[in-house]
Amino acid sequence: MTISPLAPAAFPDLPVIDGVTFATAAAGVKYTDRTDVMLALLAPGSTVAGVFTRSATRSANVLDCQAKIGTDSDAGAAIIVNSGNSNAFTGKAGDGSVARICAGVASQMDLPEARVFTSSTGVIGEPLPDDRITAKLVELHANQAADTIADAAAAIMTTDTFAKGTSAIVTINGKPVKIAGIAKGSGMIAPDMATMLVYIFTDAVIGRDALQSLVSTQNDVTFNCITVDSDTSTSDTLLVGATGASGVDVTGNSDFADALHGVMLDLAHQVVRDGEGATKFVTINVTGAATDADARLVAMANANSPLVKTAIAGEDPNWGRIVMAVGKSGAQADRDLLKITLGDLVLAENGWRSPDYSEDAAAAYMQNQNITIGVDLGLGTGTSTVWTCDLTHGYITINADYRS
Amino acid sequence: MTISPLAPAAFPDLPVIDGVTFATAAAGVKYTDRTDVMLALLAPGSTVAGVFTRSATRSANVLDCQAKIGTDSDAGAAIIVNSGNSNAFTGKAGDGSVARICAGVASQMDLPEARVFTSSTGVIGEPLPDDRITAKLVELHANQAADTIADAAAAIMTTDTFAKGTSAIVTINGKPVKIAGIAKGSGMIAPDMATMLVYIFTDAVIGRDALQSLVSTQNDVTFNCITVDSDTSTSDTLLVGATGASGVDVTGNSDFADALHGVMLDLAHQVVRDGEGATKFVTINVTGAATDADARLVAMANANSPLVKTAIAGEDPNWGRIVMAVGKSGAQADRDLLKITLGDLVLAENGWRSPDYSEDAAAAYMQNQNITIGVDLGLGTGTSTVWTCDLTHGYITINADYRS
Repeated sequence: MTISPLAPAAFPDLPVIDGVTFATAAAGVKYTDRTDVMLALLAPGSTVAGVFTRSATRSANVLDCQAKIGTDSDAGAAIIVNSGNSNAFTGKAGDGSVARICAGVASQMDLPEARVFTSSTGVIGEPLPDDRITAKLVELHANQAADTIADAAAAIMTTDTFAKGTSAIVTINGKPVKIAGIAKGSGMIAPDMATMLVYIFTDAVIGRDALQSLVSTQNDVTFNCITVDSDTSTSDTLLVGATGASGVDVTGNSDFADALHGVMLDLAHQVVRDGEGATKFVTINVTGAATDADARLVAMANANSPLVKTAIAGEDPNWGRIVMAVGKSGAQADRDLLKITLGDLVLAENGWRSPDYSEDAAAAYMQNQNITIGVDLGLGTGTSTVWTCDLTHGYITINADYRS
Repeated sequence: MTISPLAPAAFPDLPVIDGVTFATAAAGVKYTDRTDVMLALLAPGSTVAGVFTRSATRSANVLDCQAKIGTDSDAGAAIIVNSGNSNAFTGKAGDGSVARICAGVASQMDLPEARVFTSSTGVIGEPLPDDRITAKLVELHANQAADTIADAAAAIMTTDTFAKGTSAIVTINGKPVKIAGIAKGSGMIAPDMATMLVYIFTDAVIGRDALQSLVSTQNDVTFNCITVDSDTSTSDTLLVGATGASGVDVTGNSDFADALHGVMLDLAHQVVRDGEGATKFVTINVTGAATDADARLVAMANANSPLVKTAIAGEDPNWGRIVMAVGKSGAQADRDLLKITLGDLVLAENGWRSPDYSEDAAAAYMQNQNITIGVDLGLGTGTSTVWTCDLTHGYITINADYRS
C-alpha cells in the first residue's frame, strides 16, 4: 500500500516511559507475515482512564473495557490489542473471546482480570480466533521491553499506511514528566468518541478520577473534532495509563494538561493524515456562531459533506458548496452575515461573492496540501475547529474492495 | 455524458393536463446549444401548493416562492425555471433577479406578480444573468403548448443524465383525473425537503389548503425518503398545480392521494436512479424499531454511510458496515436482537452471523442492479423505508470537477 502523501517523514523517536513495557507477536489472526498483537504492561500503582465509542453496536472488547475502567486498583495493568479482526457483532462468542483473552493474560502476567484491557480492530462480524492470541502470551511475556513502543504502533495497524506516534516532555517543579502515545485508524473515522485505537502512557502521578476527567475534556477538543468519512467505528478506544514513575504529581497542572492536549491533537491529526485516500489535510474554523454547539454543527456539516470534500480533492474553490453545508447543518445562519475564507482569501461576505474575490487566487490556494476553510456566521461568539481530509478516488478504491 | 445504467428505457408518454401549457427556450444562462428555461402556465382558478428546502442558506427564488405559496387567488399562475445557475447565495442582487423575472412574467402573461413562481438550479454564488431570461419571455409566451411537458423536463436538467417524468390517471366518480409530473436532480440530494426541482400538474379540483396538506403528507414518504449524498440543496422546490379542468373534486379522496403518492414516489426513485455515479438502486427497509423516528435514523444512517455505499458499489456483502451504521445512528438498538437481510437472504441474527449465512449466495445477490437491505431491530413496531444509490468512482469524477 502506498504511504499517504500527508504522512510525517518518519515515525518519531519516543521517550521511554518508566513503568511501561511492550511486546508484539505475529499471531496470524488474519494477516500473515506481520505482527498483529501488542501487549503493554503497566507497573503496579498505575492509573488508567479511557474514552470509548458511543456506538450502540460496540464490540465485546469495548463493553468489557467500559465495565472495568471506573475501578481503582493498586495492581499493575495490561493492554492487549489485536489487528485483523474487530470482534464486533460476534455475539456471545465475542464475549467469550474477550473473557478467554483476559483470563489468559491475567494468569500469564499475574494480574487480576479486572486490570486486563483488550481491543480488537479489523473486520466486523467474523469470529475472533482468540486461541491464536492466547497461544502467544508466553512469548509476549518473555519479550517485554521498555523501548519497543514503535513496534507496538506497527502491530495495531489495519488499513493504515503509516504507524502513528508522538510524545511530549514537560518540566514540572523542575522535573521532567514524559508522555508517549500511539494510534491506529484511517477509515470508519468519525467523532462521538475517540474514533480509533489510541494508547497513551505517562510517568506522571495522577489519580484515576483526575486522569479520567482530564482525558475526557481533552478528547472533546481533539479526537472528537476529527472525521474522515462520518462513519463511527464499533471499536473506538482511547486508553491513557499513568505509571507515576516520575514522582511528579500533575493533578490540576495546566502544563501537563497542555502537553497531553498536544499529544492527543497530534495523534488525531495523524489519523486524518492517514484518512483513506486522503491527499489534503483540511482545517475548518467556524467563528461567529450563535453558540459553540452551532459552530460545531457547521464545522462537521462541512467536514462530512461529500460535495465539499470532492471539491477539495478537485482543487476547486467551489465555496457554493460551503454555503450549502452551512445551510443544511441545522445551525442558525443569516445569508447576509455569512463570511467564507480560504486561508487569508475572503471568498464571500455580506451574502455574496466578495468584491475582492479572485478565482485565480482561490484556485492557486486550493493546490496547497494543507487547506484552511474559515466560516464566520456573524451572529455571536460560538467557535469550533475540526479537521478532516478530502474525498478521492482512493477512498472508493480502498472501500469498494476491503473485505473480499 | 453517459446515461445512468439505472435510467428508464425512455421518457414516458405523459397525458395532457387540461389547463396547463408549457414552453421552453435557449436563453444561454450558462449552457449553450440546449434549452435552459421552461415556463408553465396554469389556467385561472388553479390552486398551487409547495414544499421547499429547509436550508438556512436557501436561494432567493425559494424565499420568494415561500412568501407567495400560502395565498389564495383566482388568477392563473406561472412557473418559470432556469438551469445553469441556482441564484443561491447571490445576496441582494439575487433578490433583484427574482423580482425582475417575476415582474417580466407578470407583465408578459398578464398575471399578478404574486402568482409567478420561480426556480433556479445550477452553480451557487454566481450572479444570475436574469436579462437573458426576460429577453425570452415573448418567445416563451408565443410558444405555449399543452403537449410539450417532455421539453420542459429536458430544459431543467443540470448534471442529470436523463429527463424525468411520470403520470397517473385515476377514475373518480366515473371520470378520469390526470396527474403528470417532471423532476430534475442527481447530486446535492438529501432529505429534509423536496430534494430537487419537481413540478406536478393535475386537472383535479382541490382547494389550496387541502392540496398543501396532501402534498406535505406525501412528501414525507417520498422525496424526504431519498438521499444520494446527504447534501441538501439550497434550491429544492416541489410545486403542485391543480387546474380543476376535470371537474372532479378530489378533496379527501384516497384514490387520488394514492395516485399522487405513486407519481411522487416514481419521480423520487428516478432522481435516485440518476444519482451521480450511481450503478445500484438501493432500498433500505427498517423494521422492529422502538419508534418510526428511530427506524428512520437507522435507515438514513445506512443510506448516507460512505462505507455502506462503497461496499454496495464493490458488490461486497460487507454487512459489518450495516451493523456499524445501526450503531452510529443514535437509535435504540440491541446487538443480540438485530437481524440483517439482503433480499431474502438472512445474513445476521441474534447478535451474530446467521448459521444459514452463505458468502457465495450473498456475493451473488450483490451483483443485482436493485439491492434491498433489511434491518430488523427486534424492539418494537417502528418502520421506515428509504432509497439511495451506491457511491462510486463516478461520483468523485463528477464532483471533483463540476464548477471549474
